[in-house]
Amino acid sequence: MFSKEMVIKQKNRAIVLLSGGIDSTTCLGIAKEMGFDVYALTVDYGQRHRKELDSAAKIAQIMGVEEHRIMKLDLRSLGGSSLTSDLSVPKEREISSISEIPSTYVPARNTLFLSLALAQGEVLGAFDIFIGANQIDFSGYPDCREEYLKAFEAMANLALKATVEGKNKVKIHAPLLHMTKAEIIKKASSLGIDLSLTHSCYDPSPDGKACGLCDSCIIRKKGFIEANIPDPTTYIN
Amino acid sequence: MFSKEMVIKQKNRAIVLLSGGIDSTTCLGIAKEMGFDVYALTVDYGQRHRKELDSAAKIAQIMGVEEHRIMKLDLRSLGGSSLTSDLSVPKEREISSISEIPSTYVPARNTLFLSLALAQGEVLGAFDIFIGANQIDFSGYPDCREEYLKAFEAMANLALKATVEGKNKVKIHAPLLHMTKAEIIKKASSLGIDLSLTHSCYDPSPDGKACGLCDSCIIRKKGFIEANIPDPTTYIN
Repeated sequence: MFSKEMVIKQKNRAIVLLSGGIDSTTCLGIAKEMGFDVYALTVDYGQRHRKELDSAAKIAQIMGVEEHRIMKLDLRSLGGSSLTSDLSVPKEREISSISEIPSTYVPARNTLFLSLALAQGEVLGAFDIFIGANQIDFSGYPDCREEYLKAFEAMANLALKATVEGKNKVKIHAPLLHMTKAEIIKKASSLGIDLSLTHSCYDPSPDGKACGLCDSCIIRKKGFIEANIPDPTTYIN
Repeated sequence: MFSKEMVIKQKNRAIVLLSGGIDSTTCLGIAKEMGFDVYALTVDYGQRHRKELDSAAKIAQIMGVEEHRIMKLDLRSLGGSSLTSDLSVPKEREISSISEIPSTYVPARNTLFLSLALAQGEVLGAFDIFIGANQIDFSGYPDCREEYLKAFEAMANLALKATVEGKNKVKIHAPLLHMTKAEIIKKASSLGIDLSLTHSCYDPSPDGKACGLCDSCIIRKKGFIEANIPDPTTYIN
């Protein structure tokens, strides 16, 4: 289910959750490499780093998806996360301390995103869903772990008319799950993906520059260094 | 997990998914009977039977919830269901033929609703989630079955910061799961719920009258007759 290497399957439709960051963009490249017609889905959940929505749109266009849909979901009114409220985004944290889940955690985010992908997928007849979840260089989010994704897949196969009545099987692809950020960056590079299009920063400046200090910036910087690939990002710090 | 009889638990918070129909309203009554402070959640997903949103608001107010939130989720743009598009709602069907899932099925609807409840619940510290799902007098929806709900619960307990880091456990309550519509109506009556406030019709007239012919109206009519309780609904047919 979550192997790094996957064989080319028959050409068919896949939903790719596309945030506009390195991981989801690489995931999109892998889905295309596997021969899928990609339907990209971006969720506008009220994230304060609005720049990632622009990045996602550019990436979808340049990488040649069949369709790019931006769905609105108002998580801002729920609160509970520094990504959707005025709580401050933590800066200069030790990323090695991943046992602590930071304030950038958004309640049930991947569950909501995968559920939207499931709904869109059933309408389109697309039961392969790609998500750039990562267990290694991540911020400690529970919904980025393999056991969570497996449980979601099991639930999904009981949820849909198309799986219960038809012969379809939902497959959650998380091809980056066991890769380091450096490995992901190398993979993106080997696929010819222009990572300067991607956006990672949780707390960009008004003109869209990366802060260089949030978890996401720190992981990104480190990844490029370890991959020995020049980092195209302009950081303020 | 899904027993009909449940003991009074310590007073705490629960999320109740409230559509404005008989089932979710009875579910709300049961949650209150069990001693929960109820946070009602209604999803405005572009359903053409908009009247149920008004019904939900009235019910929430009269039944004394702590908060009633209406979240918007644009499923209309996805299509795939007669409840959110111009597909015609099936009429005068034989409800006994529940092996066929009708066009009123909305892709991944309960998965999305429960996911929203999960997100709201985590912010509020409410891990008891009530849903009026029913396996018996239902329209054949896969996401109203016990095995689906159990799989959702298992997934939810792996998804949240509050369950993984904390000591909380998500519990999906579906107290109506094994009840007939008549039993549900009797239960509502015993709780003193005014069912004239509820709305069931999938295809109401512009002034909000029930069509009397869709699956939902047929099941409702039959339920009141079998419960031997006067039906307060005005049907066109």
